Amino acid sequence: MDHKESRLDRAKSQYALYKERPLDISMARGIPSEEQLKLSESLISDIKIDKWLSEDDLDIRNYGGLYGIEEARELFGTLLNTTAEETLIGGNSSLQLMFSVLSHHMFTKENPWSASKDMPVKFICPSPGYDRHWSMLEYLGIKMIPVELTGSGPNMEVVEKLVSQDPSIKGMFVVPKYNNPTGESVSNEVVDRLAGMHTAADDFLILWDNAYVVHHLTNEKVEIKDIFSASKAFGHPDRVIQFVSTSKMTLPGAGVSAMGASTHNINEMAKYFGKQLISFDKINQKRHVKFLKDESTIAAHMEKHRDILEPKFTWIDAILSAYFGGENNSFVEWTTPKGGYFVHLTTRANCARKIVELMSAIGITLTPANAAYPYGSNPLDNSIRLAPSFVSLDQLEIAMEALCVCIDLVTLENYENL
Amino acid sequence: MDHKESRLDRAKSQYALYKERPLDISMARGIPSEEQLKLSESLISDIKIDKWLSEDDLDIRNYGGLYGIEEARELFGTLLNTTAEETLIGGNSSLQLMFSVLSHHMFTKENPWSASKDMPVKFICPSPGYDRHWSMLEYLGIKMIPVELTGSGPNMEVVEKLVSQDPSIKGMFVVPKYNNPTGESVSNEVVDRLAGMHTAADDFLILWDNAYVVHHLTNEKVEIKDIFSASKAFGHPDRVIQFVSTSKMTLPGAGVSAMGASTHNINEMAKYFGKQLISFDKINQKRHVKFLKDESTIAAHMEKHRDILEPKFTWIDAILSAYFGGENNSFVEWTTPKGGYFVHLTTRANCARKIVELMSAIGITLTPANAAYPYGSNPLDNSIRLAPSFVSLDQLEIAMEALCVCIDLVTLENYENL
Repeated sequence: MDHKESRLDRAKSQYALYKERPLDISMARGIPSEEQLKLSESLISDIKIDKWLSEDDLDIRNYGGLYGIEEARELFGTLLNTTAEETLIGGNSSLQLMFSVLSHHMFTKENPWSASKDMPVKFICPSPGYDRHWSMLEYLGIKMIPVELTGSGPNMEVVEKLVSQDPSIKGMFVVPKYNNPTGESVSNEVVDRLAGMHTAADDFLILWDNAYVVHHLTNEKVEIKDIFSASKAFGHPDRVIQFVSTSKMTLPGAGVSAMGASTHNINEMAKYFGKQLISFDKINQKRHVKFLKDESTIAAHMEKHRDILEPKFTWIDAILSAYFGGENNSFVEWTTPKGGYFVHLTTRANCARKIVELMSAIGITLTPANAAYPYGSNPLDNSIRLAPSFVSLDQLEIAMEALCVCIDLVTLENYENL
Repeated sequence: MDHKESRLDRAKSQYALYKERPLDISMARGIPSEEQLKLSESLISDIKIDKWLSEDDLDIRNYGGLYGIEEARELFGTLLNTTAEETLIGGNSSLQLMFSVLSHHMFTKENPWSASKDMPVKFICPSPGYDRHWSMLEYLGIKMIPVELTGSGPNMEVVEKLVSQDPSIKGMFVVPKYNNPTGESVSNEVVDRLAGMHTAADDFLILWDNAYVVHHLTNEKVEIKDIFSASKAFGHPDRVIQFVSTSKMTLPGAGVSAMGASTHNINEMAKYFGKQLISFDKINQKRHVKFLKDESTIAAHMEKHRDILEPKFTWIDAILSAYFGGENNSFVEWTTPKGGYFVHLTTRANCARKIVELMSAIGITLTPANAAYPYGSNPLDNSIRLAPSFVSLDQLEIAMEALCVCIDLVTLENYENL
């Protein structure tokens, strides 16, 4: 019995053991844990609102204030590098703001994309990326063009070539910091090239989803170059619309989202929202301002999240290193993100789907393999996203041991010559 | 100097007095007053949420629960005559739910209206109606066909004829109870005819905006026939989508909306919302369930609103009666609604716009004349909406006296033979 056979045999017998003891663990989505939720309970339980007027004299109980209350626009402006006038506060979902921007440009703005002569409307999709971005684009009938990520943002040579030639490419998504799922952040050079590039479509939009803007996991708090002022400097003030939300700062179900862009874009979207509501929930905006206060209070609050999250990421790296470090490193590569919510595994080709299946069969749910690619389509079948935030450290250890067994099993069965 | 001249002269000199003392009163929108807001302050200040799990075991702090929490779906189901499964809870705006239904049917559903061969897409608009419905339809590119209201709902002969012949008429809005602005409610016969009528479009939709479902102003609490079960009985389970919201029950800026419809329609819209959010704000749903509790608690709460609102409506009627009752009744007709938020004035033809202008010139803002008609277009120019909820009784008295003067002035100047 050679080394490979014995390792495969061991993996098989280990996996057989898991089959006998069904688990119920989900690492599918970036959901905050109970412990994290507790950090923000006082947002609901203790924050007292003692005056009902906002700083711009809106009665926050009543109708009005489509753009959000002044103090919220100011606070979120600090995360977006925007003035209050360049900031609009939304409901509990930044995805809803993005969907609204896309739906408006696609269907309801003057000269909507859907009525353009250049069809179908297309979007650049840096991949692997956020599956909900992709499903939104698909739903709205926007064709997705995947462009590979490089470790410091999308491959700009490819992006520049595509957007400069094809006027039907109307925009792109970017998760600039701690990308979901690869964890990478865009370099200054990428920011500048995105801000300055020539686009064949003159209404080209970059949806800058800064979902992890203050969601650090290490002492190296990555700061990225301000794309909004870069775009202005390059003469493209309306190119970039930025998004942030408190879903992973306070409470995912009851947070606040915000959008930062040129006043032209903000006013245009306010007109769109004005057809469907008189304002978003201003009391929840006020609650958040009182709870999150300012940049340093936010930073201190996010440190508490880090304290809870960091050990999970450390543990993932430790277990993967123990199994696949050194000589066996060809089985899988993994990210060690400095922030965000995910670890991304690059398996050997044609292994990811099978690994996720084997995990599912023993009661451990991962995000569907390759879901981070547009249409879930990744010819290499080598992409797995791990979302460790919700599980306990104990569950994480069990899940990771099982994952390593499944990686062994599938890789050794698929690659006889290893 | 005959009677008419002296009355016109008196009106002119009264109006001249107002010009010297500029006012600042708005009766433009149906905005609850400070006193009404106070009725629901405890929703924010006192409601304690002591457990974070909903009745269907969702952590209300976290992601999840796209349809709303079970207890909210049950509570709002009592207002909508729907089961929990037929009820979806939204954000703070029922308008947003309506906009979403329209936008989905227009652009994103399978075989969307906008891709239909029967163009342009049209909607029946019972008029005078709610201006925000009309501006929403216009924004979405849906052509509006006004149909006159009769005092017990739209003229059904006209509606039936139109919808049975033209497949491009895809739906209609109805405010079934205490219509904005006419105050009328639909009769049982109208409910049955709407539920049963033949429509050339097989995906014909009735958006049933029950905005004033429990908003009574008298002891005669109007109850209307349940259109949802009527539609099911007629074999059109998917025809009607109902909407309610707490904007005028609790706090307009921080309320909860709900939608009631067939599970087919609810699931279809959940799919749409699922592309843009993981859930609406479940904590606010829980707060509302704890505050509004059940039908009788809601009814008792709405009595308090009535106590504040009713004197304003009584006062409007009293002043208009004093000026224009009896022999001078040909100047203006007005409604005496049993619920809702508005009084509607029907002036003599070609007077409404001028009256609103004169009011505006002395600092009293009314809704733009004829705004209750699609495109703001009313060839008779005879429609004025009064929204007395926000102003104090003192302000209301001043505004109404001034309004009577303006009605006198414009009517006597326009109609020399009166």
